[in-house]
Amino acid sequence: MKHNFGAGPCILPQEVFKQASDAVLDFNGLSLLEVSHRSSDFVAVMDEAQALVKKALNVPEGYSVLFLQGGASLGFTISALNMMRATKKAGYINTGTWAKGAISEAKAVGIDVNVYGSSEDKNFNYIPKNLVAPNDVDFIHYTSNNTIFGTQFKEAPKTSLPLVCDMSSDIFSQKIDVSKYDLIYAGAQKNLGPAGATLYIVKDEVLGKSTSAFMPKYLDLKNHVEKESMMNTPPVFSVYTSMLNLRNLIATGGVEAAEARNIAKGAELYREIDANPLFKGNVETEDRSLMNVTFVLSNEELKSEFDKIWNDAGIIGLKGHRSAGGYRASLYNALPLESVKVLTAVMNEFTRTKG
Amino acid sequence: MKHNFGAGPCILPQEVFKQASDAVLDFNGLSLLEVSHRSSDFVAVMDEAQALVKKALNVPEGYSVLFLQGGASLGFTISALNMMRATKKAGYINTGTWAKGAISEAKAVGIDVNVYGSSEDKNFNYIPKNLVAPNDVDFIHYTSNNTIFGTQFKEAPKTSLPLVCDMSSDIFSQKIDVSKYDLIYAGAQKNLGPAGATLYIVKDEVLGKSTSAFMPKYLDLKNHVEKESMMNTPPVFSVYTSMLNLRNLIATGGVEAAEARNIAKGAELYREIDANPLFKGNVETEDRSLMNVTFVLSNEELKSEFDKIWNDAGIIGLKGHRSAGGYRASLYNALPLESVKVLTAVMNEFTRTKG
Repeated sequence: MKHNFGAGPCILPQEVFKQASDAVLDFNGLSLLEVSHRSSDFVAVMDEAQALVKKALNVPEGYSVLFLQGGASLGFTISALNMMRATKKAGYINTGTWAKGAISEAKAVGIDVNVYGSSEDKNFNYIPKNLVAPNDVDFIHYTSNNTIFGTQFKEAPKTSLPLVCDMSSDIFSQKIDVSKYDLIYAGAQKNLGPAGATLYIVKDEVLGKSTSAFMPKYLDLKNHVEKESMMNTPPVFSVYTSMLNLRNLIATGGVEAAEARNIAKGAELYREIDANPLFKGNVETEDRSLMNVTFVLSNEELKSEFDKIWNDAGIIGLKGHRSAGGYRASLYNALPLESVKVLTAVMNEFTRTKG
Repeated sequence: MKHNFGAGPCILPQEVFKQASDAVLDFNGLSLLEVSHRSSDFVAVMDEAQALVKKALNVPEGYSVLFLQGGASLGFTISALNMMRATKKAGYINTGTWAKGAISEAKAVGIDVNVYGSSEDKNFNYIPKNLVAPNDVDFIHYTSNNTIFGTQFKEAPKTSLPLVCDMSSDIFSQKIDVSKYDLIYAGAQKNLGPAGATLYIVKDEVLGKSTSAFMPKYLDLKNHVEKESMMNTPPVFSVYTSMLNLRNLIATGGVEAAEARNIAKGAELYREIDANPLFKGNVETEDRSLMNVTFVLSNEELKSEFDKIWNDAGIIGLKGHRSAGGYRASLYNALPLESVKVLTAVMNEFTRTKG
């Protein structure tokens, strides 16, 4: 039995793995991999996947759902291009590696970026608060969860301007109010499905209003919405498996129930980190992520001993990102509380033997 | 037993479906879908997939292989951006829908396109020949196989300038001389693997020389080569399954043997089309594609009768593209000669009963 705390691509429900595996062999008499994306069978899959996103997140009327490609890295460019308006300025909040990537790509397409909040001064160990968003810009952009450093926005930044969010690592982990956003994008490979698909939830009224002189067809969300996410061949397997996972999410209580489970998992692990003298958390308590829990040993000399015992317990994916060090336990939707308890038991036992 | 003549996503070897299905359940003790792309296990997959592409196509030194996302549609933009040099002009050959897409996207990024050859005058039913490529441009671009209309270049256009080719629908179906090209790109979903990956074979000396003012990070091949195709999360499942399919290709004699099988399949079907008074081919004989065989009924009134008998024989995917009409039989690598013989037997029997 493995306990997969990996940061993504990450664990999905075992039932989803089974169903996806089955479909590669038999999807209405063919392999899923040899089915035309224009077939009625696959069009039904795409339709259902989009409908389940809307259902799971209670997406209001007037929004479209797309499954594209290129990850959040291409999403940085797509979001900036599609949201560019008269001022060609935007306000971004810098909370880590991915936020910096978004800022860099916005600049690359000609946006004058106002970084009006940043936690870079303390190596991204907190979420900047009490920020005053600029009002002379086209839109505001932030990254809801910092996968690498382990911080997470507890509420959306305040602004009356169009709001854009990269939700790659916490979408579907909690209730969100989609009506606050003009555009949400997210790589699939955390709580949605396998790598290879990127989700966009876009308010229809933003489509076709870009002021960018440069707009390749693939990067214009309007084209994809008009073709119902089938402008070109979609990532069939990733879309299908995302659909399976969304079915599973709905069947297990939706994002409300997932959020409750995630709160319980986070509480279990953060409690151990706080109570255990051999460990300490990396980030400000109030900004702690429920998806990616980062911590370090108080005494780095114990590293090889600690690494051995969690490895022996079947735990994998606990190594911190190279830019943050220490440990990172990712608690995505499909990770069971039991796995978290295996980790806290290991931490507790380690301290008992060392104490 | 189904005979899948679909144009893509298309049939792959049954053994590949089986192995891909297995890996979704168990890839070194985890599901392939929950494995980190940074793990040594997956890095080995990416390395092997790239090495097998080089082996299968006898790629010379000085080229890099990438598995990216976005399909040929994004490839139109990526190729134009990466090949743009001092003149910001390029020569394109217009042989159909996909070639037109490439031309349109090159223009969209600011390239002055010289369409120096076109078969649009006859609805793309031939390959323009005896063309004189412009020499005052940065590069020459063509589309090796016209998936929709069923024509195929039998040799690369003559030019001393850098040559770029969209090989989406015939790569790995035949021997090619990669040294003729500066850049080859191809959506995976014909002879390579499942939808969701896009192959690039790029001469290293072209990297980093674009003159485009606009160059998002994801669209710059240099960034991907530097990160060995792992600049961001790759489409893990599509890359893995492509690797399986390339292993299968090598094990069954490589592209030389595949080409011989494809020639035999094409000969079988074109012979029937030419001999059978109820059918006629859509395109000039010398320009016929071995991947996508297009034909029509001599008498359209027989359509519903003919459609019933091939459906009854277990044949699927034979309907022509909406812009071409009639029928299209795609004979990709994994389609067995036996399936072609089922189709020719159906055509023959149909004519016998009508004759």
